[in-house]
Amino acid sequence: MRNTAVLLIDCPDRKGLVAGVANLLYQYGANITHADQHQDPEAELFFMRVEWELAAFDLLAFRAEFEALAAELQMRWRLSLMSQPPRVAIFVSQYLHCLADLLHRYQTGELNCSIPLIVSNHPDGEALARFHGIEFHHIPIDPGDRKAAEEAQLRLLEASGIDLVVLARYMQILPAEFVEQYPWRIINVHHSFLPAFIGARPYHAAFHRGVKLIGATSHYVTRVLDDGPIIEQDVVRISHREQVEDLIRKGRDLERVVLSRAVAWHLEHRILCYGNKTVIFD
Amino acid sequence: MRNTAVLLIDCPDRKGLVAGVANLLYQYGANITHADQHQDPEAELFFMRVEWELAAFDLLAFRAEFEALAAELQMRWRLSLMSQPPRVAIFVSQYLHCLADLLHRYQTGELNCSIPLIVSNHPDGEALARFHGIEFHHIPIDPGDRKAAEEAQLRLLEASGIDLVVLARYMQILPAEFVEQYPWRIINVHHSFLPAFIGARPYHAAFHRGVKLIGATSHYVTRVLDDGPIIEQDVVRISHREQVEDLIRKGRDLERVVLSRAVAWHLEHRILCYGNKTVIFD
Amino acid sequence: MRNTAVLLIDCPDRKGLVAGVANLLYQYGANITHADQHQDPEAELFFMRVEWELAAFDLLAFRAEFEALAAELQMRWRLSLMSQPPRVAIFVSQYLHCLADLLHRYQTGELNCSIPLIVSNHPDGEALARFHGIEFHHIPIDPGDRKAAEEAQLRLLEASGIDLVVLARYMQILPAEFVEQYPWRIINVHHSFLPAFIGARPYHAAFHRGVKLIGATSHYVTRVLDDGPIIEQDVVRISHREQVEDLIRKGRDLERVVLSRAVAWHLEHRILCYGNKTVIFD
Amino acid sequence: MRNTAVLLIDCPDRKGLVAGVANLLYQYGANITHADQHQDPEAELFFMRVEWELAAFDLLAFRAEFEALAAELQMRWRLSLMSQPPRVAIFVSQYLHCLADLLHRYQTGELNCSIPLIVSNHPDGEALARFHGIEFHHIPIDPGDRKAAEEAQLRLLEASGIDLVVLARYMQILPAEFVEQYPWRIINVHHSFLPAFIGARPYHAAFHRGVKLIGATSHYVTRVLDDGPIIEQDVVRISHREQVEDLIRKGRDLERVVLSRAVAWHLEHRILCYGNKTVIFD
Repeated sequence: MRNTAVLLIDCPDRKGLVAGVANLLYQYGANITHADQHQDPEAELFFMRVEWELAAFDLLAFRAEFEALAAELQMRWRLSLMSQPPRVAIFVSQYLHCLADLLHRYQTGELNCSIPLIVSNHPDGEALARFHGIEFHHIPIDPGDRKAAEEAQLRLLEASGIDLVVLARYMQILPAEFVEQYPWRIINVHHSFLPAFIGARPYHAAFHRGVKLIGATSHYVTRVLDDGPIIEQDVVRISHREQVEDLIRKGRDLERVVLSRAVAWHLEHRILCYGNKTVIFD
Repeated sequence: MRNTAVLLIDCPDRKGLVAGVANLLYQYGANITHADQHQDPEAELFFMRVEWELAAFDLLAFRAEFEALAAELQMRWRLSLMSQPPRVAIFVSQYLHCLADLLHRYQTGELNCSIPLIVSNHPDGEALARFHGIEFHHIPIDPGDRKAAEEAQLRLLEASGIDLVVLARYMQILPAEFVEQYPWRIINVHHSFLPAFIGARPYHAAFHRGVKLIGATSHYVTRVLDDGPIIEQDVVRISHREQVEDLIRKGRDLERVVLSRAVAWHLEHRILCYGNKTVIFD
Repeated sequence: MRNTAVLLIDCPDRKGLVAGVANLLYQYGANITHADQHQDPEAELFFMRVEWELAAFDLLAFRAEFEALAAELQMRWRLSLMSQPPRVAIFVSQYLHCLADLLHRYQTGELNCSIPLIVSNHPDGEALARFHGIEFHHIPIDPGDRKAAEEAQLRLLEASGIDLVVLARYMQILPAEFVEQYPWRIINVHHSFLPAFIGARPYHAAFHRGVKLIGATSHYVTRVLDDGPIIEQDVVRISHREQVEDLIRKGRDLERVVLSRAVAWHLEHRILCYGNKTVIFD
Repeated sequence: MRNTAVLLIDCPDRKGLVAGVANLLYQYGANITHADQHQDPEAELFFMRVEWELAAFDLLAFRAEFEALAAELQMRWRLSLMSQPPRVAIFVSQYLHCLADLLHRYQTGELNCSIPLIVSNHPDGEALARFHGIEFHHIPIDPGDRKAAEEAQLRLLEASGIDLVVLARYMQILPAEFVEQYPWRIINVHHSFLPAFIGARPYHAAFHRGVKLIGATSHYVTRVLDDGPIIEQDVVRISHREQVEDLIRKGRDLERVVLSRAVAWHLEHRILCYGNKTVIFD
């Protein structure tokens, strides 16, 4: 685990922003390991990510001084320590390929997080959760009374101090009240190349439209279905030789990589949202 | 130029179709160079493309006998000779990259066709047409009276015996009466990954949606805008660093390859349409 | 599981091959679900894969008659029943991502096989093997006496009636005598885009050469290191921002898909080898 | 054309580099439009590209002050004005697809350069050169006395004040003395995925090795054949159905995009070389 700090900034663009941040870090003797910035000329916005080593760095003093600078320059910012990995809950239904993939990456250290919790409306994922030593909560959804289940889920998330919810092919739509509890902190994978084929059964829709590539999309969840800021997308070529079940099988490989990249980037504080879009500092 | 015949077949699937066609060709001593078939189990349809050498082959007699077989097996079919390349008209507006690309491929022998005609509602393409020794017809479109221009276009196509119309970023919508004159014989390139971003200014729409890949699609033109059978699609990765003009520039490279592949396949009789989809024998 | 037969054929190209096979199948009333053939004009070879339903099909009689036809036409052939899935042994060392991926696909029914055996020169994979209920054999390799371990491995394979050996990042080189026991029946994944970066530490070599894409390759193992017939390859884009460890991480995703595709194709009898190349009937 | 300045810097990594450059630009009131930097932790090097608007900017004074800073920080640097586009000579032989592609992009304003000169050992490109109003010099190569031709080429380059030589499928090897006149200023396209298939006839070699993807590579030319710093690479999928001529045809599309991207990046001062690698500020 890296002993570094990551600062994510966004603000109205103006002269001197890089100089301001770089100077302050230099004054404190920061050993910067990565820095990246972006300007959106149309929106007149500035975005920055800077990561530096914390050994022999006076973080408290820096933070106080930076707060003043940020206020002056109208910056929104988040300061995160890589040594304090986010706490993640994975939601899953019956398809377990994304869950299995995330857990394997977690086990091999690819994901900078802890995963205290797996939640499912089906019992299928339990063995996998056990294998990885993670609590599994089977919370069935009663279509006539979804409220009870949703409240149970929220209580679990709160009790575990969850920072990020990952919907790993979780086949239920989260209500607006749920989403609002975790703004820009719920990541979903949709099994199409958004904005094509929004909603249910996108592989069937792709098959019937006769597309030559199928895709998958990971995105933050907002109140509007399949409409949140896109984090990552990928596609694979198909041909007339392939039936719906082939699309579903090939699509699983897309879903795995597209979701795991999004989760990894989020956990390394590489994503900034603005409007309905994302800046990815990769 | 290959001295071969190409037979394209589609019919209800049943036993003995391959045996029937293969036997007849064998009886006539055909030297088959390529054969490919496809079954769609859901639609219960059979598709076949077979190509064979014509030297020392009695095409007339074969054709007569095949007609009887085809009637018996309810086959729709087309028999084409590679030595009689289709006649192509290219329609273009002000963006010339697809036109330049098609003409260069034509010149180097990549496209099995003749191109007697380029039609445009703008004068910009004339120098390029001249350089390749092709007739250029500037037919401006009067928004108040599109009819006159469309009739002039149709007269030109008929007079030149055109088999295929290629819309190489032609920025006008062809009316239904026009399209119906050339069923499955008008190929368009749309500058998005259909069915995402149908209609005007798809790169702007893609930019504002914040997608991470942009695409282009070549398809046959039908009465419904951007809805015809898709022939080819491709995508390229973009990032937050890219503005609309970067998408447009990157997209041009997609449009070129996606359109030229579709045209080449059509000219080699590699495409069969069914429902609103295509089988590509590549 | 499909109750179908698959016939794989290769022979010198001549007229009437498709007709011969198709006729015989038609006489026996075969309901063909997939058929594909290929001609290599340079090598003057013919390749065919045909799959048909076995319900109400007299396989014994067909087989006898086909044997005569095949002898007459100098065909090499293999007839396989999808209801008798091959028996697979997976060899692995310390990196477990390919093993985990294969086992998950196996569990979800993506791979048409049984996996009675996992063999490793390290103990790391045991928990995973146990989770999937598969025998795990830890056979350490003594660098001074590799013979003993190799003989133990071969005895295990024979005792379990293994049809296919999959080297899932197995970091030992198999000796020629081993390879010759399983011709075209050992699949390896090499972590580079072969023939670039043959041998050890290909990601380091790629990093130092400064390539802009890295790749992975699955291939049949022959006596010459990393030289056997290539089954599948894929690449991913990298940039100067990425260090060797990033290449290794990105490469794992390539290795997984490239190996699992190769294994799936082999298990569905979709691969024919000729010379040092493969025909993939996909 | 953008009225901007571009500063490219590389130097040993140390604290305060970004702060130093950003401060100086801020003091001069620079309106920065793009800034990007990169650290190579293994080589302990720092790289930076910064672009800013020149309207109301005192370039002379800035330059003087920056020179002092650069000396202090051991920076190598280049300051370029986008309003002074580099002068490019294109070398070509008989395959004209890359030439046609570059000239079309040049004509439509995609390439920030002037092209005063096309040089060829064959006459084939002359019509295309004329169409674009560019001088064409046919300099045949006498295999027994290559010296004379090379000297004629060098005289032409010098007389025209050429900044960049683009080898657009120029099928002759430039001698070391030639290359040394234009260090990091000759861009070649090689029709393989380097370092695979170095040297002549790479598509034939790829075909016989049976690879499943073919590639193309653009790189700076150094004294060692096909060994210079790689700028860009891309690949396309092939199958057993494709013969050498198909690889050559598909490869042309790769060569076009891979070369044109490299040239565009060079002309926008987006490339820094170090060791035998490139940093691409895209």
